[in-house]
Amino acid sequence: MLLVNFTTDDHPRLGVLDRNAGIVVDLSQAAPALARDMLGFIALGDEGLTAARAALAGGAARIPLGEVRLLAPIPRPARNILCIGKNYRDHVNEVKSLPTGSGDVPAHPIVFTKAPSTVIGPGAPIPSYLDTSGTTDYEGELGVIIGLGGRGIARADAMAHVYGYTVLNDVTARGLQKRHVQWFLGKSIDGFCPMGPAILTADAVPDVRELRVQTRVNGELRQDGRVAELIFDIPTLIETLSAGITLEPGDLIATGTPAGVGAGFTPPKFLVPGDRVAVSIEPIGTLENPVG
Amino acid sequence: MLLVNFTTDDHPRLGVLDRNAGIVVDLSQAAPALARDMLGFIALGDEGLTAARAALAGGAARIPLGEVRLLAPIPRPARNILCIGKNYRDHVNEVKSLPTGSGDVPAHPIVFTKAPSTVIGPGAPIPSYLDTSGTTDYEGELGVIIGLGGRGIARADAMAHVYGYTVLNDVTARGLQKRHVQWFLGKSIDGFCPMGPAILTADAVPDVRELRVQTRVNGELRQDGRVAELIFDIPTLIETLSAGITLEPGDLIATGTPAGVGAGFTPPKFLVPGDRVAVSIEPIGTLENPVG
Repeated sequence: MLLVNFTTDDHPRLGVLDRNAGIVVDLSQAAPALARDMLGFIALGDEGLTAARAALAGGAARIPLGEVRLLAPIPRPARNILCIGKNYRDHVNEVKSLPTGSGDVPAHPIVFTKAPSTVIGPGAPIPSYLDTSGTTDYEGELGVIIGLGGRGIARADAMAHVYGYTVLNDVTARGLQKRHVQWFLGKSIDGFCPMGPAILTADAVPDVRELRVQTRVNGELRQDGRVAELIFDIPTLIETLSAGITLEPGDLIATGTPAGVGAGFTPPKFLVPGDRVAVSIEPIGTLENPVG
Repeated sequence: MLLVNFTTDDHPRLGVLDRNAGIVVDLSQAAPALARDMLGFIALGDEGLTAARAALAGGAARIPLGEVRLLAPIPRPARNILCIGKNYRDHVNEVKSLPTGSGDVPAHPIVFTKAPSTVIGPGAPIPSYLDTSGTTDYEGELGVIIGLGGRGIARADAMAHVYGYTVLNDVTARGLQKRHVQWFLGKSIDGFCPMGPAILTADAVPDVRELRVQTRVNGELRQDGRVAELIFDIPTLIETLSAGITLEPGDLIATGTPAGVGAGFTPPKFLVPGDRVAVSIEPIGTLENPVG
């Protein structure tokens, strides 16, 4: 099931996207008391998904896709997004020689965060003008959404804690990332985390390792990586994070970016106003944003 | 004014602490509609403070300090705590030779975050047993609370955005801080951010640089630094953070720790169960926590 946060006016509503039929099924009308927003819906777990399926089977309003605007599925996470650095081998190699790169394949997951205020939806402009270092870069990534929370989650149990998947663009101000040593500031400029267009629920993904992350800038393919290539796979990330931190429903894990970031080219290919960045992970969809 | 979050049963309430009189003035009874919690109260700005002053002057319930339990003033920040690394010169020197230390006085503020789930109140045990690296360390710090939010705040205007100050202990798992390269994970174990006992409103602080941060472990003075010694002062931190990130009411900035952390001793003096850590910043008060 593809869950979306959408609007036809100014009020965000939850829905289920049926791309083949070109419609969004409006969950808010079918089950108005279900949840106020996606975070509340995720916290409901199976109860929410069962109600959504009933709405799909029943008489819930169907709105043509052309009449809705898709928003970020989780427009305001309840805490910072958990981000994994250098988690694709080819990306480690491409940044090795950069000033921001510190070398080898990590022996343990590298974890930093992005502020919740970085999240924007599909189509919203990435405000590169806020990056005073003029080095705005894209990082297409698979986002993992936690359903069932917990601490001390073992690798073997980890996938049962995954609610679903979305597409993220971990937009980065390379100059600030380097200048401030720790990466948070260069990663957390307002609007620097496009998210969407949907959450694909975990039950619809037989093997997440088969998913492919592709990033295009103005139509040119720049990144193309398979989730199977992750140095630290999703169960390992969940085990590592939850060892000391109680994971919560709606927590987001940005799993890392494949090779092909702008900083890896000579000379670098940073984003400039007017560019269009599209991150695709099928069958979740394509997250496209103009650069402002 | 010393604002507190307290309870006499299980329900957290807002109050004003009068330490000389040994009482807490209950704001929830005086102005029940004022705000649901401290974050809501801070967002009210001057309106909240005026109402609090009216409650102090009027007939609000006064509860003996011995009958209340003080909680963390902001038990669940709306996003991660903004933390500044290596912001006291003597601390930079003491960690220089450590595996986690990377040398010189920073040229720009180093910013990392702690998860909101790290916050615990005065007296609550610090769960060092969750630190699998067995290297739990204290970092006494002044916490700055943002009142009026905004982006692009200039140094000259920055202090007008400060709502008040509190005491923080940026508890750190040194082994994890090093192992995971970026500091977030070693800083974000559940319960690793004691906070309190109160928020001292900015109007009661003529010159924040005069405040002194002192940390004692089992009564032994380990840290003693003046806020005037900050490498990057509070206006600079606010200017730097807000350049790209819209600051929000209730945002917390942990301003950095003075020399004297456990890792700086030879051999290191890490925290062990049964220890008591007390961070004092007068006239805010002392934040004391046992180590569990």
